[in-house]
Amino acid sequence: MPARVDAGGADEGRSDRKRRVILEAATDLFLRNGYLGTSMDEVASVAGVSKQTVYKHFSDKEGLFQELVLATIDQVGEPFYEALPSLEDTDDVEEDLRALARGLIRIVMRPRLLQLRRLVIAEAGRFPELGRAYYERGPGRTAEALASHLEQLARRGLLRVDDPSLAANHFLWLVVSIPLNAVMFGGSETQFTPRQLNRFADTGASAFLEGYRSA
Amino acid sequence: MPARVDAGGADEGRSDRKRRVILEAATDLFLRNGYLGTSMDEVASVAGVSKQTVYKHFSDKEGLFQELVLATIDQVGEPFYEALPSLEDTDDVEEDLRALARGLIRIVMRPRLLQLRRLVIAEAGRFPELGRAYYERGPGRTAEALASHLEQLARRGLLRVDDPSLAANHFLWLVVSIPLNAVMFGGSETQFTPRQLNRFADTGASAFLEGYRSA
Repeated sequence: MPARVDAGGADEGRSDRKRRVILEAATDLFLRNGYLGTSMDEVASVAGVSKQTVYKHFSDKEGLFQELVLATIDQVGEPFYEALPSLEDTDDVEEDLRALARGLIRIVMRPRLLQLRRLVIAEAGRFPELGRAYYERGPGRTAEALASHLEQLARRGLLRVDDPSLAANHFLWLVVSIPLNAVMFGGSETQFTPRQLNRFADTGASAFLEGYRSA
Repeated sequence: MPARVDAGGADEGRSDRKRRVILEAATDLFLRNGYLGTSMDEVASVAGVSKQTVYKHFSDKEGLFQELVLATIDQVGEPFYEALPSLEDTDDVEEDLRALARGLIRIVMRPRLLQLRRLVIAEAGRFPELGRAYYERGPGRTAEALASHLEQLARRGLLRVDDPSLAANHFLWLVVSIPLNAVMFGGSETQFTPRQLNRFADTGASAFLEGYRSA
């Protein structure tokens, strides 16, 4: 029944497109006006769809907010998860951990993600579940995925790792904490050059490796 | 002229007391209702003073907010700065760095400081100068003070430190990042036991020491 499948596919395509347009409009509005300062009416108006269409895709403002935050964090993290498996058969653990660190810091420091991060922290009192979901899908998932690869490197005798999850968290925060915290407090005027970010990545990866290198 | 000095002292005492009461009332209100949700009228009412008295001490709401944030961060940090000099003549760098880490994590994880931290991050778009001041007086000052002591330990041959400021930042974030980020996103329901915090402190200090120990 190819005709019907095509029709279904096309329908879904249009629906997906609308959904994406709504998410983009909502992200812009939430970041500009905050959670309380944004209404579903405005989202519909900026997205150029009816309010009914917005509610067809998202049950309420909270659901829309949650969905856009988690969709963004999943999307921006992809390059990191794609790069990770290359660690498995590394023949230069120092160089490859540095490359991973450089990629990671570039993801974490993306302006839109930083803005969303600030917004989720600001709303953590009102939406602790969203905050926890952000943490799990962001730093939590990053550390978990990295942990299993660090464990493999330890099995190959390249690292000494007692607690892979802890080690992965140490790597993560050694690499990103300095610029990330500076920007969280300094607002969008606090910026780092790619060269500065690379230096944070390189020195963070090195400090990790010194600490976790097998003797 | 002891009489005049006494009178001056007593005057100052009353004034200081009022100032402290205003700061406490304002902190409660800002933390409960956010920056925009708090008015100088309410501050005066909760503090039990006239609005005129509030304005005698603080030029405006922004000045009051800034003052209470910075006063809190200075005050809670004191035990850390008092403990630091004991590092100078340490004869067990591992034990003393762990003790320092345990003290540090206990300060950083104080509920009131965590709430203020979240509020300052939330308002960093509106008040980037306050955010930067928080960063400088908080993590910035902590790292700077620690850096000079790490440099001394390096001169004594106990550590290998090329860049003291970077090393101090690595220590700081290795120790506090895991619980701090979990709580930033998880809201006040995310809590750690003293035992868990000690473990983050101990393992963070150990990872640092492994990385920075002189060969």
